[in-house]
Amino acid sequence: MPAPGSASLIALDWGTTGLRAYLLGADGAVLEKKEQALGILNVKNGDFAGAFREATGAWPKAPALAAGMIGSRQGWREAPYVECPAGLDALARGLLAVPSADLKIVPGVSMVDADGVPDVMRGEETQIFGVVEGGVFSGGASGIAVLPGTHSKWVAVQAGKIARFATFMTGEAFAAISGHTILGRLFAGETFDAQGFARGVDHAAREAKGRGGLLHRLFSARTLGLFDKIPGAGLHSYLSGLLIGAEIEEACAWLGGKPARVAVIGGAALSASYERALQRRGIAADIAAPDAAAQGLWRIARAAKLVA
Amino acid sequence: MPAPGSASLIALDWGTTGLRAYLLGADGAVLEKKEQALGILNVKNGDFAGAFREATGAWPKAPALAAGMIGSRQGWREAPYVECPAGLDALARGLLAVPSADLKIVPGVSMVDADGVPDVMRGEETQIFGVVEGGVFSGGASGIAVLPGTHSKWVAVQAGKIARFATFMTGEAFAAISGHTILGRLFAGETFDAQGFARGVDHAAREAKGRGGLLHRLFSARTLGLFDKIPGAGLHSYLSGLLIGAEIEEACAWLGGKPARVAVIGGAALSASYERALQRRGIAADIAAPDAAAQGLWRIARAAKLVA
Repeated sequence: MPAPGSASLIALDWGTTGLRAYLLGADGAVLEKKEQALGILNVKNGDFAGAFREATGAWPKAPALAAGMIGSRQGWREAPYVECPAGLDALARGLLAVPSADLKIVPGVSMVDADGVPDVMRGEETQIFGVVEGGVFSGGASGIAVLPGTHSKWVAVQAGKIARFATFMTGEAFAAISGHTILGRLFAGETFDAQGFARGVDHAAREAKGRGGLLHRLFSARTLGLFDKIPGAGLHSYLSGLLIGAEIEEACAWLGGKPARVAVIGGAALSASYERALQRRGIAADIAAPDAAAQGLWRIARAAKLVA
Repeated sequence: MPAPGSASLIALDWGTTGLRAYLLGADGAVLEKKEQALGILNVKNGDFAGAFREATGAWPKAPALAAGMIGSRQGWREAPYVECPAGLDALARGLLAVPSADLKIVPGVSMVDADGVPDVMRGEETQIFGVVEGGVFSGGASGIAVLPGTHSKWVAVQAGKIARFATFMTGEAFAAISGHTILGRLFAGETFDAQGFARGVDHAAREAKGRGGLLHRLFSARTLGLFDKIPGAGLHSYLSGLLIGAEIEEACAWLGGKPARVAVIGGAALSASYERALQRRGIAADIAAPDAAAQGLWRIARAAKLVA
């Protein structure tokens, strides 16, 4: 246990399925970390105050700041969205206080694209600000980041602000298609297979003209398996490579061109897959340190003068 | 009941979930039709002979010809594939006899694309030959057909042969994504909504540059719903339009350009959706008469001299 006096901030990365709670010291260093299955979908009867006490009650008293789906309509209180371009100051100004607890919630970030379609993030903005000053962006406060996951986000950061971003349903589409279509039936295990993954990335990168796109290419996971052109043990990774590869191609189209390097912010295993796929496409990957959310919460707290 | 002497062919469209059995007269006219849930996945203990008797035992004796997944590895007997370009004569030469019954099975059709990826069909080839001579192809024996479904097929027919084709996993992807991702949670019913469908088709048709592709666009079904830009009652049709629209764009890229007209061969409801989507993209749709499979089986039987 740290000495009570050294605790400066309780930082909560509070998502759909999990809650990561950090006790941060005076310089933002992680003194303690707890990971619990207390995501908003797992909190019974909307007792977020109880979940908060369960996660942090043993810690010294300190202001608390939370980011993620806890600020959604299904969370503790619905925090507003800050529109792009969104900087640290705008997030700090938009904090939503939860009256019943010494807790504030970071707003999400939204934008409307040229076709009038909205896009949103909650939690990723905080991770982004955990790395913008942290040296992951080679250009300083500008660069491209990807936050892989159920709903992957690609984010263009310019002059320290989230300039624009786009969501790709890669992770959720992969789970639905693997688990609920004919493609999964030929899988022989889910161990990572480097060759299968690379073939998927390569197939995703071919131009559509004369070939068709993702809806067609998905079927290749079936026929390459049926005709023994990829062993069953490689098909799971092939489909993963095909979808991550398709996301990278889409993101490059969205960006208007292929970036030289991309910051990858996420869990270790998924980040390694993205690094592999990006490198195969000639894009350098800068892997962010873990706990980007805690660092982002610290910086937002400082901008909001919750901590000195 | 028809007079026994008039029955010329028992024609079976035998797929994964259903079996359509036709009793055809001397001129190929449908005398009787039975539709049963006796698809190959529903036949217990591999008793295909029993299922065949159950479906056709009450009919007069006649040679039988079957097409579809009944000829797959999971079916009664595995029929070979005929390689593209595949004409009626090649299919007739490739018939596989089932020794225990007076039944033959139509081979599937396969091809390997320029990237070395195989593609296959079983059953669709027979439907194609049910319409090639039937006047659906405006150019006579050449044209483009789409067979919408779980695994949609686009087929280029040239001089009366299946020149090449491509499979698109549209139907199965739609089912998996509707039923097993966050997108389905905002659906308020599944009644067809013309406006939602059209918006989906239009969104799918936008160029990727500056926007991204399908993995990104899927998320628009979430955000347009969340921000009340499409009512919940329109979201199911929006997602349907988005996926069918994406298939059409992919197929046009595969073809190397947008065809002036496309023959649509399939069930009434799905064919109507495809017609609507094609027309919205400026492509004329020629809807095939129902029972294309029965007509195709008749023509293959004639080419194989199973019938006069």
